[in-house]
Amino acid sequence: MAPMAAAAHLEDFPITRPWPVAWGDMDAFQHVNNVTYFRWFEHVRIAYFEAVGWTAAMAEGGVGPILAQTSCAFRAPLTYPDTVTLGARAVDLGDDRFTMRYRVVSGRLGTIAAEGEGRIISYDYREGRKAPLPPAIRAAIVALEGGAG
Amino acid sequence: MAPMAAAAHLEDFPITRPWPVAWGDMDAFQHVNNVTYFRWFEHVRIAYFEAVGWTAAMAEGGVGPILAQTSCAFRAPLTYPDTVTLGARAVDLGDDRFTMRYRVVSGRLGTIAAEGEGRIISYDYREGRKAPLPPAIRAAIVALEGGAG
Amino acid sequence: MAPMAAAAHLEDFPITRPWPVAWGDMDAFQHVNNVTYFRWFEHVRIAYFEAVGWTAAMAEGGVGPILAQTSCAFRAPLTYPDTVTLGARAVDLGDDRFTMRYRVVSGRLGTIAAEGEGRIISYDYREGRKAPLPPAIRAAIVALEGGAG
Amino acid sequence: MAPMAAAAHLEDFPITRPWPVAWGDMDAFQHVNNVTYFRWFEHVRIAYFEAVGWTAAMAEGGVGPILAQTSCAFRAPLTYPDTVTLGARAVDLGDDRFTMRYRVVSGRLGTIAAEGEGRIISYDYREGRKAPLPPAIRAAIVALEGGAG
Repeated sequence: MAPMAAAAHLEDFPITRPWPVAWGDMDAFQHVNNVTYFRWFEHVRIAYFEAVGWTAAMAEGGVGPILAQTSCAFRAPLTYPDTVTLGARAVDLGDDRFTMRYRVVSGRLGTIAAEGEGRIISYDYREGRKAPLPPAIRAAIVALEGGAG
Repeated sequence: MAPMAAAAHLEDFPITRPWPVAWGDMDAFQHVNNVTYFRWFEHVRIAYFEAVGWTAAMAEGGVGPILAQTSCAFRAPLTYPDTVTLGARAVDLGDDRFTMRYRVVSGRLGTIAAEGEGRIISYDYREGRKAPLPPAIRAAIVALEGGAG
Repeated sequence: MAPMAAAAHLEDFPITRPWPVAWGDMDAFQHVNNVTYFRWFEHVRIAYFEAVGWTAAMAEGGVGPILAQTSCAFRAPLTYPDTVTLGARAVDLGDDRFTMRYRVVSGRLGTIAAEGEGRIISYDYREGRKAPLPPAIRAAIVALEGGAG
Repeated sequence: MAPMAAAAHLEDFPITRPWPVAWGDMDAFQHVNNVTYFRWFEHVRIAYFEAVGWTAAMAEGGVGPILAQTSCAFRAPLTYPDTVTLGARAVDLGDDRFTMRYRVVSGRLGTIAAEGEGRIISYDYREGRKAPLPPAIRAAIVALEGGAG
């Protein structure tokens, strides 16, 4: 889904989504405000969860993701107008957790504007505690990331 | 609760709340962005609902408020730093609706920065249709507004 | 630019823009929060200003738009995922002002989700007062709206 | 400025600011959305810059702060209503950079709700490159943090 130029920066990211920069995303320094990037990360993170079936599975089984920690490194300032392409991939799969890597590529600049991470914990909302990643979700992640499992 | 200077502009508003302006509320024109005012209206609107017991009543009875329409007139531009005082009052009580009037007073400027309105509809979430204002809520609104009913 | 279904609701709107609904646009009532609509209005309003050359003209001549008043009527609740199409048109051209009409059409529902208005004032930022609409901007608006001027 | 209970969690934080949680800060999971925390960090970060005179100095000298990287670890979910106290402190002062540590303390829960960091770079906006921290700013940071320099 990523446009040609953005795709070159997103080869390792199985899930990508375009997103338009809004004029109102800029702050008084006339660059896109740092807070906006975390809204973008959330958008592509949820797209990833949908792609591996975790949104649907959560509704049925009560085991869903929690965002325990997140970070962003800003590489190049962004301005309106632009369309960014957001990428997400999963790494470091553990029994009850994994790390999501994000990338923001500017269509206007043709470069990486930001990179980030999120630590995702598998959580049993009914029991109120951590829970192993549901096997079907784990298998879907491994397949999506092109690994052997 | 309103500070002295703000209070003079909020005499008819039974519910008031202070709110700090954040630097990040400003946009690339270096004034508080228009969208922010509607977040502030929501804050004082919900404070009003709490004051008349509608938040609690909604949880029990399934009849709650819906925002059908809202507007804002901008009187004076705001900048960081400032603390605004938000006011809310209810007018034009109907069987299943009323209008909420908002006012935003700048502590820094000592003047009215914005005025707004919201059209509130009483809605039965279980039945999926408009419903009369619960009598206890109506009585609490009338008492709060100092009217004879 | 509007998709087929949305286009039927946007025939009178010369400027349209698609916009993706984010999961994070929903509030605790699990509908898109009312504040979000005003961000969308801003996006299509600025697209309109760009289309008639007012953004560029403002940088050169110091006469630009101010949003004096805005409103939104909510017709149907929105949820993630969805893509809305935003429409903007100008009506009631005066010497130093006009009204912008907005429409939000849900791709998922195939219906109008919201309608709004903004009162736009032409303002000389150097002189600090209202100013006549620059003739080139007025002509571009008239042409865009298909009128005889 | 921190209320009594919050103060116990903020002893090492020379700059603190209270901030009210808005109902609209909650997302569809009915907790304060992760993006909101970065807005809060920005608020207390700018309060810190003001306290050490960097906001004023930047206007005069053209050397100001850039946020190069930021992160947040979420300890306890927050809900409306609540008032959080935000804390900021500076650590690891380098020639042209330092790290800002943030803490979010919930008044309602009486516990730490989140902790974060920001990597701040001193930047010469006129020259377009990194620049040493202005000596007066460095001295003010050292004094504020109670160190010997």
